[in-house]
Amino acid sequence: MPDTAEKPKRARGGGGAARRAERLTPRLEAVKYITRNIPNFEILNEEALEIIETNAETVLEEIGVSFPENPAALDLWRDAGATIDGDRVHIPRGLARNLCKTAPSSYVQHARSPERNVEIGGKNMVLAPVYGPPFVRDYVGGRRYATIADFRKFVKLGYMSKWLHHSGGTVCEPTDIAVNKRHLDMLYAHMSLSDKPYMGSVTEPVRAEDSVKMSEILFGADFVRDNTVMTSLINVNSPLTFDNVMMGALEVYAKANQACILSPFIVGGAMSPVTVAGTLTQVLAEALAGIAYSQLVRPGAPMIMGAFVTSIDMNSGAPTFGTPEATKILYGVGQLARRLNLPYRSGGGLCGSKLPDAQAGYETAHTLNAALLGGVNFCLHACGWLEGGLVASFEKFVIDADQLGILHSIAAGVEMDENGQAMDAIREVGPGGHYLGAAHTHANFKSAFWRSGILDYRPFETWEESGAQNTMKLAAAKVDEMIAQYQQPQLDPAVDEALRAYITRRKDSEADAFG
Amino acid sequence: MPDTAEKPKRARGGGGAARRAERLTPRLEAVKYITRNIPNFEILNEEALEIIETNAETVLEEIGVSFPENPAALDLWRDAGATIDGDRVHIPRGLARNLCKTAPSSYVQHARSPERNVEIGGKNMVLAPVYGPPFVRDYVGGRRYATIADFRKFVKLGYMSKWLHHSGGTVCEPTDIAVNKRHLDMLYAHMSLSDKPYMGSVTEPVRAEDSVKMSEILFGADFVRDNTVMTSLINVNSPLTFDNVMMGALEVYAKANQACILSPFIVGGAMSPVTVAGTLTQVLAEALAGIAYSQLVRPGAPMIMGAFVTSIDMNSGAPTFGTPEATKILYGVGQLARRLNLPYRSGGGLCGSKLPDAQAGYETAHTLNAALLGGVNFCLHACGWLEGGLVASFEKFVIDADQLGILHSIAAGVEMDENGQAMDAIREVGPGGHYLGAAHTHANFKSAFWRSGILDYRPFETWEESGAQNTMKLAAAKVDEMIAQYQQPQLDPAVDEALRAYITRRKDSEADAFG
Repeated sequence: MPDTAEKPKRARGGGGAARRAERLTPRLEAVKYITRNIPNFEILNEEALEIIETNAETVLEEIGVSFPENPAALDLWRDAGATIDGDRVHIPRGLARNLCKTAPSSYVQHARSPERNVEIGGKNMVLAPVYGPPFVRDYVGGRRYATIADFRKFVKLGYMSKWLHHSGGTVCEPTDIAVNKRHLDMLYAHMSLSDKPYMGSVTEPVRAEDSVKMSEILFGADFVRDNTVMTSLINVNSPLTFDNVMMGALEVYAKANQACILSPFIVGGAMSPVTVAGTLTQVLAEALAGIAYSQLVRPGAPMIMGAFVTSIDMNSGAPTFGTPEATKILYGVGQLARRLNLPYRSGGGLCGSKLPDAQAGYETAHTLNAALLGGVNFCLHACGWLEGGLVASFEKFVIDADQLGILHSIAAGVEMDENGQAMDAIREVGPGGHYLGAAHTHANFKSAFWRSGILDYRPFETWEESGAQNTMKLAAAKVDEMIAQYQQPQLDPAVDEALRAYITRRKDSEADAFG
Repeated sequence: MPDTAEKPKRARGGGGAARRAERLTPRLEAVKYITRNIPNFEILNEEALEIIETNAETVLEEIGVSFPENPAALDLWRDAGATIDGDRVHIPRGLARNLCKTAPSSYVQHARSPERNVEIGGKNMVLAPVYGPPFVRDYVGGRRYATIADFRKFVKLGYMSKWLHHSGGTVCEPTDIAVNKRHLDMLYAHMSLSDKPYMGSVTEPVRAEDSVKMSEILFGADFVRDNTVMTSLINVNSPLTFDNVMMGALEVYAKANQACILSPFIVGGAMSPVTVAGTLTQVLAEALAGIAYSQLVRPGAPMIMGAFVTSIDMNSGAPTFGTPEATKILYGVGQLARRLNLPYRSGGGLCGSKLPDAQAGYETAHTLNAALLGGVNFCLHACGWLEGGLVASFEKFVIDADQLGILHSIAAGVEMDENGQAMDAIREVGPGGHYLGAAHTHANFKSAFWRSGILDYRPFETWEESGAQNTMKLAAAKVDEMIAQYQQPQLDPAVDEALRAYITRRKDSEADAFG
């Protein structure tokens, strides 16, 4: 990246002055990303893994992958030893896997507040909100096209959400802003309304460049050159096709040492075989090809192996979520990613329900639990996803974000020290007693149990007298409460000014484009 | 058991004639119990397991357990080598574990239709409905005391539920029938309205005897003597107390070779320490003592090691469900049970929510997923549980029962044969194609994906035009549909007559007692 992006005066590189100022801002309670102290769930045995790996290499070699309208990519592949036939790249057995070895097994994504940095990979799990919905829904306003005002509200909720580690990217599509300019407003919202790490734009290579430049303003160009400050989402056009727009964004980010998620986006039965093993094979082939390509662009560029997989309802053709097939694929891809020594993205609070109702609860919980036990390192869509990703729901955002606390607690495993063993308590209470008054209970009760901040634990009578509200209504009140309490994290005024100037200049340089 | 219970004329023992008649009845679709083709999730390492096992032995030896008002039990314990102090039994290290060795690792519970038999233990998972609620709730009638009419309706729904393997026991408390007589009507409902296996009464030893005698009428006394036809629920009065009513029922069942679940019923923080490891220690100590006692009564009596554990909300004192602490305990007890080579009962569709709403969905799904991966062999409360078990919900019964299909599909694991690998499909479709028309898709689509029978998969517009119903409303319609389609499974009229005669005689022999 050229070092010429606007930047404010700073005492030195790395955003030190801005960062010192941040430290004076009153802090919300926010927890560190999850580090698992529990094993992963492994659904495939060694034999199954080897079959899938062998088959994926066969796919790459025999069938190949397509890089349409991207001659530079074809040149890179040819030079690396692949056979090119039109835009089809046939990758010799073992080549892609070997190229993936330069991608780091783990990387730090920096936030403008250093205590919000996240390390993605290993035993860690970083939680980020919903990405991509064109619609929003809330209890009062119903379902409607999303606006930049909705977008900002989601960023604020994400900033306020204790268990959420990442501000995400396109938390909803601000459809009231021109398609060629909305990325600027989205980035600015993440940078100014939150201090958690964020994602860059991928919808055109030039928008990826804008994302890098705005990050240089926020962090300093030197800092961005030496550090990863964005993790961005590159979807594969499954099956086996890497379109030039997404690859163009990937190239920008890889060259700038910024991280990408290389993510097959698969509706099983439509974009992959209807079987779990067949889909795993295709996902692995696509991930190998895409991540290998990133390493051809820049060896060492941080990459996440992604898998967004849903089933299809063979009656209606609709994608379905929280299904057992998706769960099995999530577990399987996790094993394949760990054997590649790569960070893994999957899961999220996925559901097909149109409302934050029981269906949403079941479907979401199935996927969140699978993501935790399946070893996911970066969990996009962890909160707010509704209606197959068409809708970002304010109520579901806060319900899901609350549920994420459960993942933290399970991941912590079982405390086995003397206090955890609690033998003194068992001795103190004895047969027929109760523990409410025990010394051990008093010493531990505040931290002993995870407690929801939204779900209703009151007795029936109290709950009924206060209106017999369901979870959606309780969440609607929580959204209002959080927004009322929101305080913008401090941002160096010079940085803010420079960001605004960049956005104005870029917006003025192009006519609005819609669609 | 004496062989004098009323029984109809039969061609021979074992209920052969009745069973042959059953085979002529048109059959509902019902699937076999789950046999896991996936690993268990193990949250504790070897060191942690050994600490907990050592501590549990210390509890049994030093603190001991209480068998109040049960001198015969104290005699059995004394003869086995325990030290008795008042009603306190101090069990020398290793004795209880050794006694547990005669309990089978797996047993068949017979149903009156042999194809409904279930094998409990090993890699199997048998799903049974909610047990115990004094209230019911439905969409139209709201929350109210349960009646025998409600009870019968739940038994019918259980019979109609494809993924449910067991008819259960007290699916709700029929509060309109005298306390000392309702067990007769409950058993008769299970025996006549369903042909799935059922549970016996445990609220007084004499009611356990009635359960055995009615089973002798249904199956034939010879058959019951030689086979297990009931699995009944014996709760421990935690901490460490085995009350004489529950033990009296256990004694009846063990002597009759009928199975019991020995289940600590624990609200963590009240009836056990607030820590996971402390609760695991107490659960193990209680299970060891209770199951060892069953083997003193009759070596070889089939027993299930149970754990019903919930957390407490330290703000309100309410029990909470679907919490991470309960999940960790479920996983841990599963490991401890497997090391004892005993079948394991835990889990269920547990929730604290007052409605079948999003809260219910999240909480229920957390526990059902944990039960599947935690190796549960007998999952009581798998459907219908609401409001911390105070309420049996008709809508939640059918929503949960539908969700149980997911557990079957995950448990089946990943098909790795040639069809599962689907390489021909990947070759056929190639980069940029789609699989909807592929030969492999056509050959597999009917069975490829689990499909809910209740959740809404329609496009938004279709759903909205048809009333924008949430899951609760969709489920209410499903309840009505199932009840309308219900057909009673055939029962030998002579058996039916004998059961009715037994009930009439028993009811006439006592005055009604309430409470």
